[in-house]
Amino acid sequence: MKVLLIGANGTIGRAVRKQLEMRHEVVTAGRNEADLLVDITSPNSIKEMYLKIGKVDAVICAAGATFFGSLTELTPEKNEQSIQSKLKGQVNLVLLGHEHVNNNGSFTLTTGIIMEEPIVGGVSAAMVGGAIKAFVESAAFELPRGIRINHVSPTVIAESIEKYGPYFPGFEPVSAYRVAKAYQKSVEGIQSGKTYRVY
Amino acid sequence: MKVLLIGANGTIGRAVRKQLEMRHEVVTAGRNEADLLVDITSPNSIKEMYLKIGKVDAVICAAGATFFGSLTELTPEKNEQSIQSKLKGQVNLVLLGHEHVNNNGSFTLTTGIIMEEPIVGGVSAAMVGGAIKAFVESAAFELPRGIRINHVSPTVIAESIEKYGPYFPGFEPVSAYRVAKAYQKSVEGIQSGKTYRVY
Repeated sequence: MKVLLIGANGTIGRAVRKQLEMRHEVVTAGRNEADLLVDITSPNSIKEMYLKIGKVDAVICAAGATFFGSLTELTPEKNEQSIQSKLKGQVNLVLLGHEHVNNNGSFTLTTGIIMEEPIVGGVSAAMVGGAIKAFVESAAFELPRGIRINHVSPTVIAESIEKYGPYFPGFEPVSAYRVAKAYQKSVEGIQSGKTYRVY
Repeated sequence: MKVLLIGANGTIGRAVRKQLEMRHEVVTAGRNEADLLVDITSPNSIKEMYLKIGKVDAVICAAGATFFGSLTELTPEKNEQSIQSKLKGQVNLVLLGHEHVNNNGSFTLTTGIIMEEPIVGGVSAAMVGGAIKAFVESAAFELPRGIRINHVSPTVIAESIEKYGPYFPGFEPVSAYRVAKAYQKSVEGIQSGKTYRVY
């Protein structure tokens, strides 16, 4: 399969790449150090990326930023950062990309445990996760030509525990390897509209 | 209680008003024919509304538009209509409003059955509903001074069945009265972070 991996340089992206490039042609995309440069907050940048790559069998998004901060300091402007990047960025990869995906191909997006288990400062990320989850569950029934769509919802990753651990008290970390296996399941499996929780 | 009801002229809004004005002071807000004019797609308009009304005990939003159309015709621009109105409009009513809500007051937002039971053309509305649900579930733990937040998720309303019935095949309609009771439960009850399904 030809797999387009957006956000290949992050902790999750690197593990997904390692997991998939054994069996597939993986084309990386991101803001820097990638085969294709893309800024997912820009619909035009997404369109250009798809025009450059042509047809693919799978699109994986492990990119997207969200604002972290308590509800009382969350402003419409700060919340907009999450909406522009991890919400609209991921949704627009699907809306602008499905014509570039071969029959029976797939999209795999990324959410996170925060949408189901709130943490302090995670309200904006939770909102985005809930949006992507419902979008995936609905889009699964409307995508044409057998194209599937799923999302992976990881808890805190062991490899990022020094940076993020303090925000996830009592959350049992999982390895990036285990998270990457969920993306593999989505790409190579048969399900659609599914939440792959890695908790 | 002093209740701010945004979207008082819709099918749901009218029923909520009727249900609540027997026991509470209901101040209506909306784009027209309301005590206070507000456009929830504009943060400045929301701020002005709150400055005019001062302190309230409950904020109810029964307003917000979403784009309906199949996934293959859904563009980033059409999806943006839903994000600006029903997603950011409702979230910003909370972000910009919690300081105007008295201790132990409440917010009640509106989602819908589509986020859990997809219908053709409902992908954008589903995305918004999922976002509001996760936002509510997370914000419930962070709102200060005992302020609660819930959302009501109605199925198709009997009073709107001629207009919307064809989009909801096999969905059993509920009366606007039953939906209004859920808003009453949210405003006068004790729960927070709750989805009040009226299916």
